[in-house]
Amino acid sequence: MADNEKPLIRPSVAALDGILGEKFPILNHGFIRVVDYMGDDASVVQAARVSYGSGTKTTREDAALIRYLLRKRHTTPFEMCELKVHVKLPIFVARQWIRHRTASVNEYSARYSVLDSEFYVPSPQDLQLQSSTNKQGRSGQFSQEQAAAILNIIKQDAERSYSSYEYLLAGGDGSEVGRQDSSQPEAGLARELARIGLGVNFYTQWYWKTNLHNLMHFLSLRADAHAQKEIRVYADVLLDIVKKWVPSTHAAFLEYNLHGAHLSRSAVAALRAVVKEMDMNAATRFLSGRELREFYDLLDYTNNV
Amino acid sequence: MADNEKPLIRPSVAALDGILGEKFPILNHGFIRVVDYMGDDASVVQAARVSYGSGTKTTREDAALIRYLLRKRHTTPFEMCELKVHVKLPIFVARQWIRHRTASVNEYSARYSVLDSEFYVPSPQDLQLQSSTNKQGRSGQFSQEQAAAILNIIKQDAERSYSSYEYLLAGGDGSEVGRQDSSQPEAGLARELARIGLGVNFYTQWYWKTNLHNLMHFLSLRADAHAQKEIRVYADVLLDIVKKWVPSTHAAFLEYNLHGAHLSRSAVAALRAVVKEMDMNAATRFLSGRELREFYDLLDYTNNV
Amino acid sequence: MADNEKPLIRPSVAALDGILGEKFPILNHGFIRVVDYMGDDASVVQAARVSYGSGTKTTREDAALIRYLLRKRHTTPFEMCELKVHVKLPIFVARQWIRHRTASVNEYSARYSVLDSEFYVPSPQDLQLQSSTNKQGRSGQFSQEQAAAILNIIKQDAERSYSSYEYLLAGGDGSEVGRQDSSQPEAGLARELARIGLGVNFYTQWYWKTNLHNLMHFLSLRADAHAQKEIRVYADVLLDIVKKWVPSTHAAFLEYNLHGAHLSRSAVAALRAVVKEMDMNAATRFLSGRELREFYDLLDYTNNV
Amino acid sequence: MADNEKPLIRPSVAALDGILGEKFPILNHGFIRVVDYMGDDASVVQAARVSYGSGTKTTREDAALIRYLLRKRHTTPFEMCELKVHVKLPIFVARQWIRHRTASVNEYSARYSVLDSEFYVPSPQDLQLQSSTNKQGRSGQFSQEQAAAILNIIKQDAERSYSSYEYLLAGGDGSEVGRQDSSQPEAGLARELARIGLGVNFYTQWYWKTNLHNLMHFLSLRADAHAQKEIRVYADVLLDIVKKWVPSTHAAFLEYNLHGAHLSRSAVAALRAVVKEMDMNAATRFLSGRELREFYDLLDYTNNV
Repeated sequence: MADNEKPLIRPSVAALDGILGEKFPILNHGFIRVVDYMGDDASVVQAARVSYGSGTKTTREDAALIRYLLRKRHTTPFEMCELKVHVKLPIFVARQWIRHRTASVNEYSARYSVLDSEFYVPSPQDLQLQSSTNKQGRSGQFSQEQAAAILNIIKQDAERSYSSYEYLLAGGDGSEVGRQDSSQPEAGLARELARIGLGVNFYTQWYWKTNLHNLMHFLSLRADAHAQKEIRVYADVLLDIVKKWVPSTHAAFLEYNLHGAHLSRSAVAALRAVVKEMDMNAATRFLSGRELREFYDLLDYTNNV
Repeated sequence: MADNEKPLIRPSVAALDGILGEKFPILNHGFIRVVDYMGDDASVVQAARVSYGSGTKTTREDAALIRYLLRKRHTTPFEMCELKVHVKLPIFVARQWIRHRTASVNEYSARYSVLDSEFYVPSPQDLQLQSSTNKQGRSGQFSQEQAAAILNIIKQDAERSYSSYEYLLAGGDGSEVGRQDSSQPEAGLARELARIGLGVNFYTQWYWKTNLHNLMHFLSLRADAHAQKEIRVYADVLLDIVKKWVPSTHAAFLEYNLHGAHLSRSAVAALRAVVKEMDMNAATRFLSGRELREFYDLLDYTNNV
Repeated sequence: MADNEKPLIRPSVAALDGILGEKFPILNHGFIRVVDYMGDDASVVQAARVSYGSGTKTTREDAALIRYLLRKRHTTPFEMCELKVHVKLPIFVARQWIRHRTASVNEYSARYSVLDSEFYVPSPQDLQLQSSTNKQGRSGQFSQEQAAAILNIIKQDAERSYSSYEYLLAGGDGSEVGRQDSSQPEAGLARELARIGLGVNFYTQWYWKTNLHNLMHFLSLRADAHAQKEIRVYADVLLDIVKKWVPSTHAAFLEYNLHGAHLSRSAVAALRAVVKEMDMNAATRFLSGRELREFYDLLDYTNNV
Repeated sequence: MADNEKPLIRPSVAALDGILGEKFPILNHGFIRVVDYMGDDASVVQAARVSYGSGTKTTREDAALIRYLLRKRHTTPFEMCELKVHVKLPIFVARQWIRHRTASVNEYSARYSVLDSEFYVPSPQDLQLQSSTNKQGRSGQFSQEQAAAILNIIKQDAERSYSSYEYLLAGGDGSEVGRQDSSQPEAGLARELARIGLGVNFYTQWYWKTNLHNLMHFLSLRADAHAQKEIRVYADVLLDIVKKWVPSTHAAFLEYNLHGAHLSRSAVAALRAVVKEMDMNAATRFLSGRELREFYDLLDYTNNV
């Protein structure tokens, strides 16, 4: 087995070192900044090659191996790289994000510390109507006047709940936060209780660390058009970071995962019939309804089904 | 290797079957109910004995083996049992709970469905002052009048934000929910946006499934006095469920985990000195400050350090 | 949210109950037998519907929802079902199997207990030449005479190493196991050392428990043609068990996963060109080499690339 | 929340950089070498402090916080550091090691590549008798003559099986490896089959990456006296590496974990009685049998139970 004898130097990536610690702003108060990382494209290759017992090759061969690994759905070599980011994000986004379990997280504690008065308010163009076709989607715009009214409600509610939070925390100093109340307590309510009225649009922060394989899984779900826009904008920034960090993996990920398509057994059968008969209608023998429409969409074929 | 030849019958536990589906109320609107389970005390023993290559013994020997396993910190046999519960809980409790990653969760989606107007309001005796010694704790009571004022604020803020939620969802039907506004939208705001102003005291629901080992880990942290009270009450109900389900494991868990103590190397040295010299002050040669006080507390020894 | 109020009865599956504990023989000494399980097709549906806040529907609607979930790559509802099996398998198969980390395992301990004299010997038709095209594959047959010679070597080596094992364990009783040696020890070598010369074709046993989602992931890799045949035969038996247990999930798994296909971004582009131009050669603008050949294979199209 | 604004520089540890890639020999052919790492003691502190919302302090305060975190069994901040090592180890050691599931592994593939003729043979002093008290332990020495005989058996069996392996692989070139056989195949047996007769004392290799929390868990089990000696020697080398890498964490780990002790509820009660009555026999009211003996052992107290 070929291995690089000592001395080793830790792999580093100049393009990522150049942005270490830099805050990429997201939404109205959020950000992502890279805190640390481990490994690079070559680390993926190195781990894959331990299986084959052969040493490092040229960069071009490395890129080809990375493409092969992603194409064939190998996962473990991508676990050999790690990314650690500091993220500021609304609580409702954090609640979606945390569902990705194979990651390490340390979050700002509202039991221990006081939250800032920062909450998410959508930009007017992000305010959309409930989609009539997708129960968890949005589509269609409000008028400028309507949008302003909605944003006003969101903003006023958040400000009011933060004002209550300060009041409950303050105890005897509550007068400073603008309310007078004869029954005002002399000491404040415990932080872990005072915060329960704050909305899920308030911001929290965390350090989040995951490996490159699980990061790509996160991106394949959260950079997807079906993800809620407010988490998708975080995924988009992470995707840019991945591009700087491991460009060969990034390119292969777009090619074989993010912009690929999955065909069912029936879709494969439909496709074979179409190709053999050179007739798109052959697909109807294998697919129907929503699956047929998605099949035609995949092939950029328009008909009246 | 001894194994029970067919036919096998799935292990079942009458005491747990008797409460299947029953809602145990928690806090003002929450509950836990057992939906399904797999295995029993004997399943733990069975898994442990595959390692030893010996068959089933008496119940008494089984209990002794379970005690031994927990005493020696064996974990994998306890992974062989699973519990699935349906839980209704405030979002801020869910946020603590979800940090236990080795579990399966399906949660009610506020992107897809509309949340009910149910939010957590503490009972007056649970309202406590911020602890002056423990930054994430509470201690000390408010006067009845103060408590009433605080609860009023919490309740009013939640009602106001729910009213806004309904208004934003309603679109053209908004007039029905009690507000008149000339700029009212004709169709509702997307659900995934309308809910962002709701406080973390609103209730969510989920199915949660974990194995007995990870359940005990959850309980050792969340049934502990340092856990926030609002999650501890859930842990207490789960602990009762565990007692019905796997009584031998429950007893051993209390004995060796929940009510045990961990000693550092220095504490062991201190203890040896104390015992050898029959003098509690011998401990001061090994421990000081907070660790010394905790040591004395552990031994129920009062002095003036 | 709709939920079935008490009393609940644990879901059970008659077709699986009927084979509980039954040994399905695999290879020359191995087997799989189902020890326990939790949940059924309806449990998947129940977990998915908690997200939507709607109750149980007809079996037909349930099957359609399961298809939808697998088609859209939802995973968490399938985690709500668990399967526990008792498996006897060669060590080299166990080494591949254990790489699936999200599972619970209790294995027979050769530190603690004595292994039986059971080792894997391939059947003559499974003896194949090293593939010249696939470094981790096999293809081509030996003559009957050659196969017999190979099997003889495998068998003799295993018997010799087991004889040494018994001798090392036996100590003073070694004479009974057929060797005379003046330097024979009076007591046996520790079991944890005596076994180190046994080949990876010796059998071990374990209890293995995993959830339905991870089981399908296991099957998608191990029931695949690229898996080593000796683990694939175990996957095939598990696939039959899944069919008895959760027939709707099994059918959807075959349709959307096991017999589906994944297309890269370039393959999608190639396909669109083919369909638009009704000319298979249009694919060559987007794909080349191995990926082009695989594309043509997928479409059952033969040409001379 | 305090955070270090850009530019950041990745944390590095000179003492670990100095040994990067260096092979630390273990057993007769094995080794561990550090390939890469992420984070240092300060990274643990940084992650812990995000929860508290306060910035970096002095090194002395950092060490105190690390001690506090381990004492109170906090785990997530230690997940923020990663270690990647290249390990060469016997298969039976690898089988114990791989049971630690929260790690990333890429192993040399004997399906794909040919294994070297390297196998573990214990040193004479490591050959021990089966323990009569501990079914998975060893104790007591063999005579020099006996040890030599045992080692001879282990060595001869391994050489014979490797010779068979080469023969089976070689096909038509088999004559070169020292055997003549009229039925020798013209091409070799597939690698994935030829290797099945090799003993579990043959060496394999892998890249293994895990985070500091899981590494400490590994060490607490594998650097323990109850672990098989052949894995303990690897744990000991890893422990030295941890000392160079994160010295504060290493010191706290020895103090609060590796050299600490766990007391059951009954042991705490026994201790309180002993201390109150200044009479060691008071313990017998709470403990008996093996647990009483272990209690006395913990306190270095000798009596005749």
